[in-house]
Amino acid sequence: MLLPRSPVTAFAARRSALLARLDGPALLAAGQPQARNFRNNSHPFRASSHFLYLLGAAIPGAALLFAHGEAQLFAPAPEPDDALWHGVQPSFSELQATHALAAVRPLEELQDAVRDAGGTVATLPTEDAASSAWLSSVLARRVLPGTGHAIAEGTPDHALALAMIALRVRHDAAAVTQLRAAAEASAQAHIAGMRATRGAKHEFEIAAAMIGELRRHHLDDAYSPIVTVHGEVLHNRGHDNAVAAGDLLLADVGGETPEGWAADITRVWPVSGTFSPTQRAIYEAVLAAQEAAIARVTKGTRYRDIHATAGRTLVSALRDLGIFKGDVDGLVERGAAAIFFPHGVGHLLGLDVHDLEDLGDRAAYAPGRVRPARFGDRYLRLDLDLEPGMAVTIEPGFYQVPAILADASITGAVGADLDRDVLARYADVRGIRIEDDVLCTDGAPEVLTRAAPKSIAAIEAAMASQ
Amino acid sequence: MLLPRSPVTAFAARRSALLARLDGPALLAAGQPQARNFRNNSHPFRASSHFLYLLGAAIPGAALLFAHGEAQLFAPAPEPDDALWHGVQPSFSELQATHALAAVRPLEELQDAVRDAGGTVATLPTEDAASSAWLSSVLARRVLPGTGHAIAEGTPDHALALAMIALRVRHDAAAVTQLRAAAEASAQAHIAGMRATRGAKHEFEIAAAMIGELRRHHLDDAYSPIVTVHGEVLHNRGHDNAVAAGDLLLADVGGETPEGWAADITRVWPVSGTFSPTQRAIYEAVLAAQEAAIARVTKGTRYRDIHATAGRTLVSALRDLGIFKGDVDGLVERGAAAIFFPHGVGHLLGLDVHDLEDLGDRAAYAPGRVRPARFGDRYLRLDLDLEPGMAVTIEPGFYQVPAILADASITGAVGADLDRDVLARYADVRGIRIEDDVLCTDGAPEVLTRAAPKSIAAIEAAMASQ
Repeated sequence: MLLPRSPVTAFAARRSALLARLDGPALLAAGQPQARNFRNNSHPFRASSHFLYLLGAAIPGAALLFAHGEAQLFAPAPEPDDALWHGVQPSFSELQATHALAAVRPLEELQDAVRDAGGTVATLPTEDAASSAWLSSVLARRVLPGTGHAIAEGTPDHALALAMIALRVRHDAAAVTQLRAAAEASAQAHIAGMRATRGAKHEFEIAAAMIGELRRHHLDDAYSPIVTVHGEVLHNRGHDNAVAAGDLLLADVGGETPEGWAADITRVWPVSGTFSPTQRAIYEAVLAAQEAAIARVTKGTRYRDIHATAGRTLVSALRDLGIFKGDVDGLVERGAAAIFFPHGVGHLLGLDVHDLEDLGDRAAYAPGRVRPARFGDRYLRLDLDLEPGMAVTIEPGFYQVPAILADASITGAVGADLDRDVLARYADVRGIRIEDDVLCTDGAPEVLTRAAPKSIAAIEAAMASQ
Repeated sequence: MLLPRSPVTAFAARRSALLARLDGPALLAAGQPQARNFRNNSHPFRASSHFLYLLGAAIPGAALLFAHGEAQLFAPAPEPDDALWHGVQPSFSELQATHALAAVRPLEELQDAVRDAGGTVATLPTEDAASSAWLSSVLARRVLPGTGHAIAEGTPDHALALAMIALRVRHDAAAVTQLRAAAEASAQAHIAGMRATRGAKHEFEIAAAMIGELRRHHLDDAYSPIVTVHGEVLHNRGHDNAVAAGDLLLADVGGETPEGWAADITRVWPVSGTFSPTQRAIYEAVLAAQEAAIARVTKGTRYRDIHATAGRTLVSALRDLGIFKGDVDGLVERGAAAIFFPHGVGHLLGLDVHDLEDLGDRAAYAPGRVRPARFGDRYLRLDLDLEPGMAVTIEPGFYQVPAILADASITGAVGADLDRDVLARYADVRGIRIEDDVLCTDGAPEVLTRAAPKSIAAIEAAMASQ
């Protein structure tokens, strides 16, 4: 089961589309490997998503120059020792043919090419300081690393950012193929995690099964895996805790393809293999919220309204359980949802797990829209009107966070309508999140991650199978 | 099977030992997480080895100040949202008690503490540019990232580097316990890789089994795993190739413990489960070289001489096979070993897989010794007289590198005494390396990685078992 590779024509089409949107020249750098504990022991190289989008290959130190209506790749020349340490590298003419580029030239010629590019050369900062320093030198102006938020409006860099957003926010066919493959293989990792849970004594043993399964499909981690019995800590990266029969395990794990496309899946399952009645009740409440939200991933729907749907559905279900009392509308208005669901319902998904987040909220918030101020809503990473080709996550949750439950500035407006005696019966539910990747289409939403067991029956069956 | 944790007294003793070696104050930074594709999606945080050595915990952005005869930790104050996103963080007084520190203080107070430290505060650069920029600001002088090679002699920074080397180059009991645990669990990963090979169609499937097994023991990758049927490419990081029955698979894979201590193991096994007669012959030649070298990991032996022993033993064995002709001494003198074994026989091992390589050759080359100029020998990363407590790798190899075999500047001196007709019979051996981690003691060398199957019989048995 090999992962699909995008056709070279897909990248050529993307480069042409970018050229068509640009008024002037632009330079996009791949970035440099980042040292882990010393220079020769670096983190696995992950090229800039903009570069991957346009070339599909991760070439450390390389850069794509768009000028005079064509795209040229500037790459480091092979070094004499490469054959020994890194294998025979493709020649420039081989690279040119493989990638259907106008030209491939040594990095040393880039400075002259920039000078002859016919105007101010726009760029986007990379995340690594070394590459941004190099861009500063090549472009003879200051380029700060990872400062997408700080790109000034009206500049060529700003125009380049908007052009890249316009291309990347709606996925083309090759991108959708990659996202589907990442989602399907990542779903297998969740099944592997469910199967590995019985017999596991610590979180890391379950994480190991999931990471191993991602690698078996040739996926890298799209982000640091969260595998924990303390799901109420949203970004819990450690895997140290012991797991016990009464615990729920939360796994937020997704892989990325060699071309860089991500999946992002969260599932929750009982360590024992069987949900307790209280766990079952809250799980069904979150699932109802998630399914109501997924159903609204349709053309023209404003994403913030989907967030509201998830929150309202959750509050309604918790009211049915007696955790909340009174009128649902009133509860929602008073911020009841955020007491248990304090984050946004999801985000864009693509080459980045939070797609285009390197450019701040520019991609994810339509012009004139800003993040809401209210607790819970202010973590909403996305507020576009959805269009076919956009991929988003839908990931409501329920968390008992002691710091929130003790914070009168959050719970005060709901007051006695939060029944803490009833809530106390659900002490074996610390954190639940259910997350799928969903493609907006012209018709019904396509749930890319549907192969990951989600109903209680499907999860319990997966855990029982070997 | 939980990994051992070093006692807090071990770190306190290391800090006292450092203080005893310093004439003035010093500051050692943990470093910062490095962004992967955007700021909130960072590579797993790996603290500076110097910091880990002295504290045993990876605290992003923290720093240890040694001044006035005591060690104080400066750490970022917990942020209001931490309880939600990262969980309740230990308070400063909890950190102080856990780590037996003189004091734990907020980072904001560091600048004043540096001013009152009683002299120029020495430091060592971290690998990440953000931390080095921060050090520059705190110390009010320029600290360049990852520039261990550039520390000027006679400066406080140089004295600090030498003090850290003096401590870290011979491992204390807690370090040896960590290295043993990393080695034993990494050996299990090699067994998992051997077992996963039958039925695998691509390198990444075998790598997946090995990485999964590392994680199951709570180890991270100490370095990017090399798992390839093209072992003749020394640092082959891709896992894309198909594997076929006649291939040898080379796996250079080691994990590191949560405290940061590394293992580094290479094994080679036949994809089919059985070595061919030609593969067997070359494997035994490399194994003879490796065992002869391991036997010399004894107190007082110069490491360069061990490198020479490995080369000479290999040449002798290849002469017995008819690949070389003539007198062994003469062949060695004419550079015969490097034709097939072009790298050094090993390096220091500790918190870094190439231990202390962030400080250049300072730790690994005794004063007055420099890297040899000759091809092959110039890649020798270590040339100390061994002492008890030093851990080194021993990793000779045999590689048919087309670029080397075609290079008359390398093969010319051996000329017709390299019998290319005989060599052609061994075309099914592209690359073999056999690598163990060895602790120098007062007596016989301790092979930390001995649980990884190494004899042909042991490998074939491991591959057959399920």
